[in-house]
Amino acid sequence: MMISETSKGKFITMEGIDGAGKSTHLNWLADFFRSRGKTVVVTREPGGTRLGERLRELLLDNYQTMHGETEALLMFAARREHLDKVIVPALDQGNWVISDRFTDASFAYQGGGRGLPIQKLEVLEHWVQGLFQPDLTLYLDVTVELGRQRTSAIKTADRFEKERDEFFQRVRECYLERARKFPQRIRVINANLPLEQVNKSIEETIISFCK
Amino acid sequence: MMISETSKGKFITMEGIDGAGKSTHLNWLADFFRSRGKTVVVTREPGGTRLGERLRELLLDNYQTMHGETEALLMFAARREHLDKVIVPALDQGNWVISDRFTDASFAYQGGGRGLPIQKLEVLEHWVQGLFQPDLTLYLDVTVELGRQRTSAIKTADRFEKERDEFFQRVRECYLERARKFPQRIRVINANLPLEQVNKSIEETIISFCK
Repeated sequence: MMISETSKGKFITMEGIDGAGKSTHLNWLADFFRSRGKTVVVTREPGGTRLGERLRELLLDNYQTMHGETEALLMFAARREHLDKVIVPALDQGNWVISDRFTDASFAYQGGGRGLPIQKLEVLEHWVQGLFQPDLTLYLDVTVELGRQRTSAIKTADRFEKERDEFFQRVRECYLERARKFPQRIRVINANLPLEQVNKSIEETIISFCK
Repeated sequence: MMISETSKGKFITMEGIDGAGKSTHLNWLADFFRSRGKTVVVTREPGGTRLGERLRELLLDNYQTMHGETEALLMFAARREHLDKVIVPALDQGNWVISDRFTDASFAYQGGGRGLPIQKLEVLEHWVQGLFQPDLTLYLDVTVELGRQRTSAIKTADRFEKERDEFFQRVRECYLERARKFPQRIRVINANLPLEQVNKSIEETIISFCK
């Protein structure tokens, strides 16, 4: 489970509500590292493994209801597999791993959004990953209104996207709270700005991180 | 989550490796209570809910590999839903609930069988069910050899049934250890005996339990 000391790979996660622009910036980030000679593994949560993608289907299925605690357990089950099969082996091989969402999303969505106690989520976090944490987390902060505006035209809403604005407001607040709690690891990027400015802000953060 | 004090239903679980005769005796037990005027809900784990049955498919799928800890998290996710949607509401309505396997199976299979530390499983047990426990657990004890003999002719082996004898030996030992640890709740039934004798033994246990 723990990464060996010889590991030279870095684990970067990207967080934010839908419409924050995660996909665009994540692809840019992967290219940025590739152009600097890194081997980059791009992955996502929930998902990233065969089992994880099957669980993702269940979790996003509009016709599937479930208790908030069940949802949290499934997210962490998918994460356990993701760490075992993808993230840790890639880091051990010296690769860089960029994940579209990770454990901060469980705190934001199941904690902030669904109202599960943060302490209960910390128990699962420790159960699944021990002390393992991303080396860097980019939280793309966008207002709920702008996020919804950017996504509504693109696709049919899944089980999470169907939630009301107050839900996403709580998700956002929880993300911001975590960024205040872990300022070294989580960097807040103002994603309300135009694409190029957001991109410039990410680039500066990454260059400073790599120094 | 907690059962109200006015509850008059009882929660009985039946445990054992395949070939112990759980299904036969479970049906007999349900009829026994029904003939005494109880409303009986018969259910199973993993499963018992729509989501639980979808997770059961994943868990038993021979083509799906997964880490032992992932397996445990999925079992408890299915259980959280099972408690929320089936077990607790039925007990609150005064019904009797009989489940083909429950948390003891997670200790036996993921703990004994897969080798996860019992303490880690206790964390999940407490996370999911607090202090809630079955009122009575019947553990049908059968030797691995006899269990395998009884099942091999019936159906194609699933992901668990494909395991080797040593795996089931550890599962059985863990069940017996739990019975020693919780002698009030878990009653060991010698299921190596002929059907009628096992049945008689269950009947005596149940009559004494109902007194």
